[in-house]
Order: sequence, then C-alpha cells, then structure tokens
Amino acid sequence: MKANTSINRAILLIHCADQKGILSNISQFLSDHNGNILSLDQHEDSEDHHFFMRVEWDLHEFTIERKNLHERIDLFMNEKFTHIHWHLAYRDWVPRMAIFVSKYEHCYYDLLSRYESKEWNIEIPLIISNHDKLRTAAERLNIPYYHIPITKDNKQAQEHKQLELLRLHNIDLVVLARYMQILSKNFISHYPNKIINIHHSFLPAFMGADPYRSAFQRGVKFMGATAHYVTSDLDEGPIIAQDVISISHRDSIKRMKRRGRDIEKIVFAKGIWSHINNKVISYKNKTVVYE
Amino acid sequence: MKANTSINRAILLIHCADQKGILSNISQFLSDHNGNILSLDQHEDSEDHHFFMRVEWDLHEFTIERKNLHERIDLFMNEKFTHIHWHLAYRDWVPRMAIFVSKYEHCYYDLLSRYESKEWNIEIPLIISNHDKLRTAAERLNIPYYHIPITKDNKQAQEHKQLELLRLHNIDLVVLARYMQILSKNFISHYPNKIINIHHSFLPAFMGADPYRSAFQRGVKFMGATAHYVTSDLDEGPIIAQDVISISHRDSIKRMKRRGRDIEKIVFAKGIWSHINNKVISYKNKTVVYE
Amino acid sequence: MKANTSINRAILLIHCADQKGILSNISQFLSDHNGNILSLDQHEDSEDHHFFMRVEWDLHEFTIERKNLHERIDLFMNEKFTHIHWHLAYRDWVPRMAIFVSKYEHCYYDLLSRYESKEWNIEIPLIISNHDKLRTAAERLNIPYYHIPITKDNKQAQEHKQLELLRLHNIDLVVLARYMQILSKNFISHYPNKIINIHHSFLPAFMGADPYRSAFQRGVKFMGATAHYVTSDLDEGPIIAQDVISISHRDSIKRMKRRGRDIEKIVFAKGIWSHINNKVISYKNKTVVYE
Amino acid sequence: MKANTSINRAILLIHCADQKGILSNISQFLSDHNGNILSLDQHEDSEDHHFFMRVEWDLHEFTIERKNLHERIDLFMNEKFTHIHWHLAYRDWVPRMAIFVSKYEHCYYDLLSRYESKEWNIEIPLIISNHDKLRTAAERLNIPYYHIPITKDNKQAQEHKQLELLRLHNIDLVVLARYMQILSKNFISHYPNKIINIHHSFLPAFMGADPYRSAFQRGVKFMGATAHYVTSDLDEGPIIAQDVISISHRDSIKRMKRRGRDIEKIVFAKGIWSHINNKVISYKNKTVVYE
Repeated sequence: MKANTSINRAILLIHCADQKGILSNISQFLSDHNGNILSLDQHEDSEDHHFFMRVEWDLHEFTIERKNLHERIDLFMNEKFTHIHWHLAYRDWVPRMAIFVSKYEHCYYDLLSRYESKEWNIEIPLIISNHDKLRTAAERLNIPYYHIPITKDNKQAQEHKQLELLRLHNIDLVVLARYMQILSKNFISHYPNKIINIHHSFLPAFMGADPYRSAFQRGVKFMGATAHYVTSDLDEGPIIAQDVISISHRDSIKRMKRRGRDIEKIVFAKGIWSHINNKVISYKNKTVVYE
Repeated sequence: MKANTSINRAILLIHCADQKGILSNISQFLSDHNGNILSLDQHEDSEDHHFFMRVEWDLHEFTIERKNLHERIDLFMNEKFTHIHWHLAYRDWVPRMAIFVSKYEHCYYDLLSRYESKEWNIEIPLIISNHDKLRTAAERLNIPYYHIPITKDNKQAQEHKQLELLRLHNIDLVVLARYMQILSKNFISHYPNKIINIHHSFLPAFMGADPYRSAFQRGVKFMGATAHYVTSDLDEGPIIAQDVISISHRDSIKRMKRRGRDIEKIVFAKGIWSHINNKVISYKNKTVVYE
Repeated sequence: MKANTSINRAILLIHCADQKGILSNISQFLSDHNGNILSLDQHEDSEDHHFFMRVEWDLHEFTIERKNLHERIDLFMNEKFTHIHWHLAYRDWVPRMAIFVSKYEHCYYDLLSRYESKEWNIEIPLIISNHDKLRTAAERLNIPYYHIPITKDNKQAQEHKQLELLRLHNIDLVVLARYMQILSKNFISHYPNKIINIHHSFLPAFMGADPYRSAFQRGVKFMGATAHYVTSDLDEGPIIAQDVISISHRDSIKRMKRRGRDIEKIVFAKGIWSHINNKVISYKNKTVVYE
Repeated sequence: MKANTSINRAILLIHCADQKGILSNISQFLSDHNGNILSLDQHEDSEDHHFFMRVEWDLHEFTIERKNLHERIDLFMNEKFTHIHWHLAYRDWVPRMAIFVSKYEHCYYDLLSRYESKEWNIEIPLIISNHDKLRTAAERLNIPYYHIPITKDNKQAQEHKQLELLRLHNIDLVVLARYMQILSKNFISHYPNKIINIHHSFLPAFMGADPYRSAFQRGVKFMGATAHYVTSDLDEGPIIAQDVISISHRDSIKRMKRRGRDIEKIVFAKGIWSHINNKVISYKNKTVVYE
C-alpha cells in the first residue's frame, strides 16, 4: 500500500557539542545497514559551536529491525561520541494528545476539525476544561470531556486529578488551546517540552494577560501569536512558531481580537504539527524547527 | 504643468475629543470655498472616543488664498469646536531634513540615494556624525558634513553645537540613521515628534543595545525593525513604521545583521516618508499613520 | 443593551464619476438629521477619477426612521447627483448564506466553526453538495444538507434545483467552499457579486485546475490563495482577499497542499467577512475593500 | 586573521537522479580528508526523485590542496556515481559582476551602495547602459561606465560590443538593474544561469511590460517583485527570489511604482546574494535556493 510505504521511515534528531565526523559516521551507519536517506539537515550554532541534525531515512530495506533499532543506535552513539543527545522517532507514530481548553472556541474547534478530517495523524484520548461550555464538540467526536473547575483553593487537588487522567490515557502531548489557567511548576515538570501553549502576541513582546490591549496601547504596527513549550517561567518557554499581521489605526482592540483568532489558530496548529512530526529540537530555551 | 497641478493641494490633520458635526462642518467649510476633496479618512478611537481625520483637497479653485488659510482655519476651528488639534500642510512642502549618522552605512546610503534620485521631495542641508568615516558620500552630493565627536565629557557642549547648526539651517526633521549616541532630554525637547530613529527590532521586544543578539538568544522566529519618534524614554517613543521577516535556526547573529540591514533601511524610509508627506498624527505616545 | 447599541448603525457605500460636493452634501445630510458619523473613508481612483466612499453612522439619535431611510436617501441622491451608485446597509443585518461544498473539509469546517461559535452574525439555511460525504457536520448543527450530484448530463436540471432551493431559503450569499464544480453562466447571473469562491493560488497566477502543481512546476517562492466573486470568466472575477506564504525547495506538492489548506480557509473567511460586513464595493471587475 | 579563517571554506553543490549512498559516500570522502562539515542540506524532489545537496566544509585541516581539489572530486564522482552534476566553489570567491542599467536609479544605487560599503564581496569591473544618465554614480566609484545606445537597427552590433567587453573583463555574472532592453537569444546563450533580472511583479503573474498597471487593473491585493535567471523566454527563467507587499484601494499606479521600488531593490539584492554565495542550484527551469 502506498500510504504505508511513505511512512515506513525513521527519524533521528541529534544535538551535541561539535565533534569531528558526526555526520559522516552517522550517514555511514545508515548506509551500512541499507538505509536510504531521504532528507538531512545539519548545521552548527554559530555562537557556541553546537551541532544539530535531523535525518530521515527509509526503513524498507534497512537491515536493522525496529525492535532493535533503539539499542543499536545507543551502542553506536556511545562508542563514537560523547555527550550526544539523540531522539529516535518513526513517521508512523500516532501521538496521543490531550487538549486543555476554557471558553474560547477558535483554537479548540480548529484542532478538532483537523482531527476529524484526519489532517493530522493523532489520537485525542481526552479533553480537559475548567468550564463545561465546550462539551458538545467533544462528545460528538466521542472524545471524553472532563470538566475540572479550578479555584484558588482546589488547584493542587485538581491538577493532581488532571495528571492522573493524563497518565491513565498515556498522553504524549498536552496542548493548551487558550486554557486560561496557569499550570503549576509541579504539573509542568511531568511534561517537559511536551506542553504547547498559544500566546496571543509576538513574544517576548506583551507577555502576560491581555496582550491585545497592551499592543493597542503601545501602538505597534504588527500584532502576532506565538506557540511555545510551557516552562515554569510564564510565556518564556522555547518558541516553536510565530506569525504576525499588520495593523493600523483602524484596528480597535475588538478588531484585534477578531483578527487575532485566525493567527492564533494557525500558529498553534503549526507549532503542534512541527512537534508531532518530530521536527523540533529544544536546546537552551530555544528550538530548532525543521521545515 | 502637470507636476505642479498635482501638488497644489492642502492637507488638514485633525484630532480631538469626539464632538458632533466635525466632519460635516469641515467638509462644508471646504465645499463653501470651492475646495475639491481628493481624499478623506476619518475614524474614532474605540477606547477613548477620540476623533481623528486627515483630509486632502485641491487648491486650484479654492477661494481662500494660501497666505490667509491658516488664519481662516484658526477662526473657523475656534468658532466651531473646543480643544481641537489641527495641523495644516501643503503637498508641495519641501522639508529640510538633517541626517545624524555614525559608522553604519546602509540606512545612510539609502537615504542619500533617495535624495539624489529625487525620489523624495526634500532638502538635506547638513549631515552630522560623531565619526568622520562617511564624509565622502556627503561631499559628492555637496551636503555639508559636520564631524562632531561625542565623549562622555563633551556631550553637552557638542549637543549645543548640533542644536545651533540645526537652528541655523532651519531644520524641520532630524533622522537618526543608526546614530549610535543617545540624545539628551534637552536636545529632544527642541524637536518634539521631529526626530525619527530606526531601531533594529520589532519594538517593544528587544529594546536597548544589541537587539539582534537578544533576539537570537530568545529564539524568536521573526526579526524586525521599527521607525519611531524619539522621546526621552529610550526606544519607547511613538512607533511610525515596523516590519518583520521570518528567521530560522540557520540565522546566525551575523546573518541576522546582514538581513536586518535591508529591513532597517526600508522601514526607516517608510517612517520618514509618512512624516514628510504629512501622513502622521501623534497622540498618546502612539501614531495614526494614513496610507 | 450594549450589544444592540453598538450595532444600531447604518452604512452607505457609494461610487460614481467624480462630482463636486459629494462628501460635503452627504455629511451635511447625515448631520442635518442628527446622525453621528463613526467612520468615513473616501478616495478617488487615480486612473479614471471615479469617486468611492464608505460611511458608517450611529442611528440612535438619527431623525429618519429605518423604514423611510431608503426612500429618503433615494430622493436626496436623485436631487443632488447624477449616475451615482449607492447601497444602504445596516450593521445588524444577518445575511443568509448558503455553502456549496464537495469533499474537501478544511474551508467547510472552518465556516461551520465560525457559525457555531457565533463569530459571525449569519444564518446558514442550507448546505448543498455534489457528494454525501460531509453531511454529518451539517446535521449536528441542524443545517439542512442537500446532496445534489452533478454529472455532465444532469447539470442543467440540478442547477435548477439548486436555484430553487436558494430562492426558497431567501439566500443572500453563496460561498463555494472548494466546491469542485463550475457554475453555469445562467446560475451565476442570479447572484451577481453574491457568489464567493476560494481559489488556491495568488490569482491571476495559476488559474484553473491543480494550481499547486503548476506553482510547484514553475518554481515560485510564494504560494497563495484568493477569494473572489464568481463571474462567468473562470477565476477572473473581482478579487476580494488574497494572502501568500513563502515556500522553498523543501515544499513538495503534498506539503504545499497541506500548508495551503490554512491559507485557503483564512483568506476565504476574510473575503466572506468583508462582504457580510458591507465593506466591499465592486467596480470594473475590481473591488474596493474597506478595513 | 579571523576574517580569513571564516572564509577558508569549500562548497559543493550537487544534483542527480537519486542513487544509493550519495550522502554517505561524500561525507565519508570529506571526513577521510579531515574536512569538517559546517553545514549540509540534502533533500529529494518528491515528484521526480531527483537528489539535491549543498555541503560546506572547513579547509583548514583539509588534506587535499585547493589546486588539486577539483580533479580529486572529479575522479571521486566518476568512480562512484553516474550522471551526477556538481559544482565546487569557495567561500572567498570574489565574483566579477557587470551591471546593465537604463534610467531607473533605485536598483542601481542600491547595488552600488552594497559595493561601496563592502557589504558584498564582489568586484564590479564595468557598468553598461543604453543611456548616459547614470554615469556619475559609476565614475565616483571608479567603475568604467560604457554608454551603448540600442536601437532596432544597431542591436546586434551593440550586443557584440557588450559581449566583447564582458569577455575582456572576465565577467562571471551580469545583473540587469531595470535594464529596459530585451537581450537576444545569442547574448543569453553566452551566460546561461549567469544573467539575473529583476521583474516588477510576482511572476508568473503580469509578465511583460508595465506590470504595475496590469496589477492595478486586475485589482490584486498584493504586488511583488521577482529576481530570476534570464532565458530566451521573456520573464520565464528560473525564479531565484520573490517578495510581495499588500496593496489596497488607496494604491494608485503611481503609489505602486513608489512602493515597488523598495521591493524590487531588496528582492534583486536577495537573488544576487544567493547566487554570489553559491546558494543556488538550477534544475528544470526552477531553482533550489539554500538559506
């Protein structure tokens, strides 16, 4: 089947302090085992001479079986290099993604549309919200919707519930679709570089609450949105995707919110897409995002 | 002559707290004196109900002479409205612009090229620099180039010299073409909303020194430039023009600087163009910029 | 109620050969009847001296009642001007929009999401498709979904059915959400400037079928989408909205299609939004689109 | 010296029908001779399975001398692969670029500014124009300026003169800075993929004369510019760089021309920069342009 063929591929994401022969050793390793390289992108960070690489290869005639591949690469990396970070992934991976949402629909509906139309190869085992408002859209797609209200007093207990649900459903990725709550440091620590938030400004400009109002008051000529990994520093995690649109004196705050919804949902989807397709390397609070 | 015809026009920039009948009174006034309105743009700020308008009209059959126009408008405004701010300008105005520059050529050369090719209808009576490096380009266009080095100790005296030169040359507008000095509060107070700076980031992100390095380190996916009026708060004056370009992991700081030069010069020129064509209203540390 | 207040407004869209005093006469007319102008944008086409204007005013204290307004404006226009085209609209208009769709979901789901979340103030009385594939999404929102298959032989009869349905449901606007059929000249004649199509290229480049493949083969560095009114000349009607994104050698046709879906849906929505908010004037196979 | 260090590098541009082991063989070859790979970008065309690669490596400890490198690579390629196209280049290459210009200054001045400020590492041995208008700017930089007027009758003879001059000055690249003449097929054949033109539209839209007027009349919402290699099919050669800006009803043709100048010069410079930095592979009337 053609569909299967095109996704019987492996991906290796690598970064480390620059060392001699990384590329040639790895390409030799793949070649020795009959792996046809389909795409390779390698560069060096100009400031601290850090090496980054993404390579994707065909597994059809590859002579190492999937079940042994992780171990074989591990042996190879240990033998050849020091302090190398690598991540092995497969094209046919189906990430299990949880959506957190509050009351704004636009990003949420956009994600569900991509899911329903099979635009993305993902599973959505559950949706969690601090409000009951958006239950219908979940239920008609047969996705369990958990209403977990958060107050100042119950936050710790409710986050515990959330974590338990994520664990039970074996979640790979949490996406905050305009979820209006701040996650605790403890919560975040369970999903490092696995929680993606959409912030409605071109960060680092206008961090925190009500960025459209701040942008309006500052009189900027562009507004934007940013998808980023969540860290314990609010709105300061590694940026995955951004986009901007021009604004003018005719843009009231209300109009900015309306136009902003469209950038938010597109940038959010772009960031998630890069993550679930193993296109992102995180390093030093930044990301390398391959096309 | 066609060229003259198209510029025998007047422009009125108006803003005030919203009052009844501003538009109809003004358009009636122009109509009563046979002024054909060529373009009018009016809107209200949605937050504080402030009224803004720009109107441009043909003077060919206008029955008030130029020499009387300012006074007649003044009478009219005082009679009809309270606390109205207005500025009368003419299309054939030739602003006298001083360039301040240090050692970076790109914005400077770009301005001189526009001047030499008569792309802009301006005069450049003088150029001031704290270095002697870029004298040649000034002299071949017969523009006086004043080398006024600034040190911590002589700054006050040298600024005094600069102000004297600007006054002598009857300067309307000062543009800082990557001039690497911070102007004193006193200097700025002589040219309110008449000094335009180019900052190499999409403000308010990355204010201050070395914004490309800051942008690189934050890992943003866009870089930009901002043309703004200079106020005593560094990099916080009213923004006139901005633009951005996307960047990726392949953009080293060096490459950002190279690519940045092109946005800087285009955004700077765009901001200056809007100013010298009477397209800008400043209000509350923001600008309304008409197309 | 605040919500009602903000939409008790009228809008006048005007165009005509340039004549003296249009603006002052109209603003006087509004002022005479106590209409507070909230926004006015007026310009003249530079090539053929055609006058265009959009004015929006508050009706709260306006002394002409809605039921008489059309007639009063008609009288006024006839008295003052010759060959003037004008359209009166109200902010609280709820357009009745029919969606035509085939098998692609992305634009269709996006429209339904905007409808469901009440982002747009519209009614969708029916959806028509030549396939039965996308019925579910319609039915869960209680929108009648008509499956009207089109073949070479039955096209005329089926279009007759479609027109009958549109008439019965009193449709104001038809939007083709990647509807893969070409409408007949007769069909189009019933809805002049009332059918909006989304084409997946930056027209006029790559008209006709499979524009992504054509763009790939030509090796352009940008791809785009265009929302336009449908005329009998395929892909040549007045353009309402466009957008583009940059592409590189890493963009296969497959990837272009994936990325294209997002521009298509945003540009389509932008075009429709402008239309249903009375922001568009059509003239000479072009549009003036107010912000 | 730091400056020299950073440019003692070689670049290999490769394309061919896909074959096994290209990447591993080449990286092995470089590694075997102690060449540290600084950047490598490899991908496969999805439509016809063509392989493309750009690799840049450090020559400091590379064990093959420059004078032997071409031959050694030739041997290696012939031994390992069939029908492979490759181009070897060096980072410290100083291309010799001829400018052709007519009467428009903006692109021309922009190129000269980059040259004068040493932004680009090039030589400009001569400038050729069919008018004498822009001689001054050439002469003050001591660049010979040849005035070679073209008429219908003398075109063949004048092109012969031009070719002779290019040959004498050992020109690597010809850039047409809004040169308003169409080059003959014969002329072009001497510089395949070595003549870069700037066209003032986003090709393939609005080929030929007066594209701003055509864009205005079609009512597009974006205008653009395209840098492309010149082939005997007018405006149809491989596109190297493009950019666009949004336009509205306020953009007259005159205003489009004014705003267009800035995109033209930036896109032109971008295309030339990619070429002189060996970032371009031409294939099937398209280009692969590396970042």
